[in-house]
Amino acid sequence: MKKQGLLLIISGPSGSGKGTIVEQLKAKDDFSLSISATTRSPREYEEDGVHYFFRTREEFERMIENQELLEWAEFCGNCYGTPRTYVTDQMQKGQNVILEIEVQGALQVKKLYPDGVLIFLVPPNLEELGRRLTKRGTEDKETINRRIHRALEEMEFVPQYDYVVVNDTIEQATEDILTIVRAESMKCSRNKEIKKVFKGEI
Amino acid sequence: MKKQGLLLIISGPSGSGKGTIVEQLKAKDDFSLSISATTRSPREYEEDGVHYFFRTREEFERMIENQELLEWAEFCGNCYGTPRTYVTDQMQKGQNVILEIEVQGALQVKKLYPDGVLIFLVPPNLEELGRRLTKRGTEDKETINRRIHRALEEMEFVPQYDYVVVNDTIEQATEDILTIVRAESMKCSRNKEIKKVFKGEI
Repeated sequence: MKKQGLLLIISGPSGSGKGTIVEQLKAKDDFSLSISATTRSPREYEEDGVHYFFRTREEFERMIENQELLEWAEFCGNCYGTPRTYVTDQMQKGQNVILEIEVQGALQVKKLYPDGVLIFLVPPNLEELGRRLTKRGTEDKETINRRIHRALEEMEFVPQYDYVVVNDTIEQATEDILTIVRAESMKCSRNKEIKKVFKGEI
Repeated sequence: MKKQGLLLIISGPSGSGKGTIVEQLKAKDDFSLSISATTRSPREYEEDGVHYFFRTREEFERMIENQELLEWAEFCGNCYGTPRTYVTDQMQKGQNVILEIEVQGALQVKKLYPDGVLIFLVPPNLEELGRRLTKRGTEDKETINRRIHRALEEMEFVPQYDYVVVNDTIEQATEDILTIVRAESMKCSRNKEIKKVFKGEI
């Protein structure tokens, strides 16, 4: 019996380390990473079709019109969205899929897929978040302050998430998420055929 | 900040190995085991106040009348129940509590404590259940057949549980339950003060 893949939706403020953790998850276990479309400019190391599909605003708006996006949102002046087909194809094949998306998008997806697992990733505390954002060196002070303010706003949405993971260290937080995935796979709602399996009927 | 203890409610048919697994959990981690009251006769190795509180039917009925039981049920001609005070005291101290109870009782407790975590333990398959019950050598053939029939009936209630754990080996099933406990401790509903913790307010 082929079980449907798990849809893992990971959000967290800039500086929560979600990018690194998602890379670790891909390396450690059997996850496909959904690639988002965005109108924001690529960072130096980012490649089109690998980190994001980089699109113009016009192209992005066409994707919305054609209902090619599972969710989309505007954040700090840029649009981000999740191409629908890739996600649903993978899940039907029994493959777990990770969406790394921000709060508004995550809640849109949860409405469409109540079985999706919403995880909110937080840095251990406010000071550490400030340190991480400063260390990154890609944004000016004003942007950093805006991101900290935004982080506090986003945390108001934590109660609508399923799990909260504190990123003290990348290793621990990655292990925590794998723990959640293992527990979720034992949910009765994901094992509806258990009696038939027990009786040897399937 | 002292978090409330987790209430873990474990059920499973005779021969699912729940007794052994509960012993392993007590040995491995920070769990208190609730001691049930019962009207059934002690097995050879069982001690009053350690494995069960062995009570006469008259004594048991007095406990029901005095509302001293969190739940109770009759099963194969015997009554089983959970003394209330011990459980609530431990949880308030931040201690995790395990209840090893049968289906009817488990569902009663879940109604009273929706935050309780219901785990259904199953042997890997029907043949293995038969083998385990026969090997135990404490029941005659008729009782074994009744228990197998009862196991199949009980599995109808799995959809009302939160998790299902397959007991292939004691070690794996114990680890699975610890995984569930770790994941549950990251539930947003159990971390309502996370924003205050993040801001350093508590």
